[in-house]
Amino acid sequence: MRTTTFSDRLFAAVKAKQSPVVVGIDPDIEAIPRTYFPDPLPEHSLREAITQGVLNFSREIIDAVTHAVVAVKPQLAYFERLGPAGLAAFEEVVRFAHRQGLLVIVDGKRNDIAQTAKQYAAAYLGAGDAEGSLWSLVDQEGPKGDALTINPYLGWDGIEPFINPSGAKGLFVLVKTSNPSSGQLQDLPVVAKSDRTNDQTSSVAQVVGQALEDASSRAAGESGYGNIGAVVGATYPKELAALREAMPHVPFLIPGYGAQGGGAADVVGGFDERGLGAVVNASRSILYAYKNEPGTPAQAAKGAAERMRDELRRHLW
Amino acid sequence: MRTTTFSDRLFAAVKAKQSPVVVGIDPDIEAIPRTYFPDPLPEHSLREAITQGVLNFSREIIDAVTHAVVAVKPQLAYFERLGPAGLAAFEEVVRFAHRQGLLVIVDGKRNDIAQTAKQYAAAYLGAGDAEGSLWSLVDQEGPKGDALTINPYLGWDGIEPFINPSGAKGLFVLVKTSNPSSGQLQDLPVVAKSDRTNDQTSSVAQVVGQALEDASSRAAGESGYGNIGAVVGATYPKELAALREAMPHVPFLIPGYGAQGGGAADVVGGFDERGLGAVVNASRSILYAYKNEPGTPAQAAKGAAERMRDELRRHLW
Repeated sequence: MRTTTFSDRLFAAVKAKQSPVVVGIDPDIEAIPRTYFPDPLPEHSLREAITQGVLNFSREIIDAVTHAVVAVKPQLAYFERLGPAGLAAFEEVVRFAHRQGLLVIVDGKRNDIAQTAKQYAAAYLGAGDAEGSLWSLVDQEGPKGDALTINPYLGWDGIEPFINPSGAKGLFVLVKTSNPSSGQLQDLPVVAKSDRTNDQTSSVAQVVGQALEDASSRAAGESGYGNIGAVVGATYPKELAALREAMPHVPFLIPGYGAQGGGAADVVGGFDERGLGAVVNASRSILYAYKNEPGTPAQAAKGAAERMRDELRRHLW
Repeated sequence: MRTTTFSDRLFAAVKAKQSPVVVGIDPDIEAIPRTYFPDPLPEHSLREAITQGVLNFSREIIDAVTHAVVAVKPQLAYFERLGPAGLAAFEEVVRFAHRQGLLVIVDGKRNDIAQTAKQYAAAYLGAGDAEGSLWSLVDQEGPKGDALTINPYLGWDGIEPFINPSGAKGLFVLVKTSNPSSGQLQDLPVVAKSDRTNDQTSSVAQVVGQALEDASSRAAGESGYGNIGAVVGATYPKELAALREAMPHVPFLIPGYGAQGGGAADVVGGFDERGLGAVVNASRSILYAYKNEPGTPAQAAKGAAERMRDELRRHLW
């Protein structure tokens, strides 16, 4: 049986739900209502008690937005700060999202080389270790995501070990990030040796993007997209459109929508003419919508996710 | 009382031990002798059982090399692959190394922006959240490292949130990594806008290095070094020497010694005229020295760490 690739699953979900929305799970315990945590707080095992609240909050939000989104994007940093209990909660979020029929994009921006990179890939996506090896036994005990964000600074040695040969799992490689200073490195104009005479330049982000296009175009699935994707921020609409044109086989994960300032009009350039090829993430504007509107956190998140979906629908289809 | 900065503590230890050696704790369960793990393996909670063996192995190695090294560098990827139990073992390694009087450089190559970057910083270095806040209470339950490796692809927004204002904690930012393809991005010749007219180019690594030098030179301690360091691989000795010259206030963490091919003669260019300014990491060649020599893993690691220290001493002092 042919394995369904990550991109094919992702864009089938986008079509089925008529939604390219991804909700980021960034559980900031100072932003979650205090009622989710024990009062008084325990003196010992505080992390476990707090983490239980994080898990309850995350599950309520995911349950409320499932119909309007195609994937969740748990942000590992928040779970790691909660220690071992936090990593257990992350695993429970992955299991819960999968039971809801959602894809899971693990946001870890991991990067390393060789054997070390393979540990990250195995930890978050599963790996192809020899059957019966200790590592393959270990990997069976943890749930795995469907895609992982990674950072390209180490060159191809830092990307290749993360690639799943069957295409069943995906990657989103940082290309042009949404933050104000992203251009300090990513926009640096590169002088190709052969181009010296006519002073043609590409940016660092374009060089990275070209490598991803080369890899994804060799393994495009039925959706027309490969499984080595790119992170391109909503906050740079011009670059987003230019990169979409230069990378027709690379699926995009577009962060920066909502709290960071990007809107639906800013992200349309990241989609193809069918309205596919990209998914758009919002984290705080959905998770913590309750701060600005009536209702429970779940009700407010549901409303915010539906509005985001509907606004994107109007611009895309 | 004036806080002793990370670099001052690091180089005081180098002088006291006459050793710039850092041992990387990369616990690959396929490379650790099978005798460290239960036989037969349990059917449930396998990760806990395996992790206990990892912890025993790691503690034995650290105990055996403590006199010959200044710091341990646990590689998070290996611990994360073991799930929540692995993260608990990582914390126990940090506690154990500190009890041994060693510094802890957490190797996570983390990167993100704003609030998310702050979670990583708090998780691994501790943070300055408002006293009594939920996060500050959480942070008290986990041990913290002395320095963290981070990745500069996101620009200064991705570095600044990791910086500890007091200088008590350090960073090592990837500049020129030890892997074969590191040049694909890091060596790209770029034209800074101000240089356009005279067509001067720097490499991406040099641009990153300059930003680190600017920051570290503004906050150098008694050792002459700031606390925003650089990762520069042993496998590129020419670049290492050039970067040392361009970054006189930036402490270097030099990986790639031993298993990756770098030797003592390759790393001397990363040190200053006093033989300070850098520490050199070896992971597999110490951890798994038992594979190539007689004795227990601890005895073999002790021998390998002492030989590495002695070889570096001959070249440096």
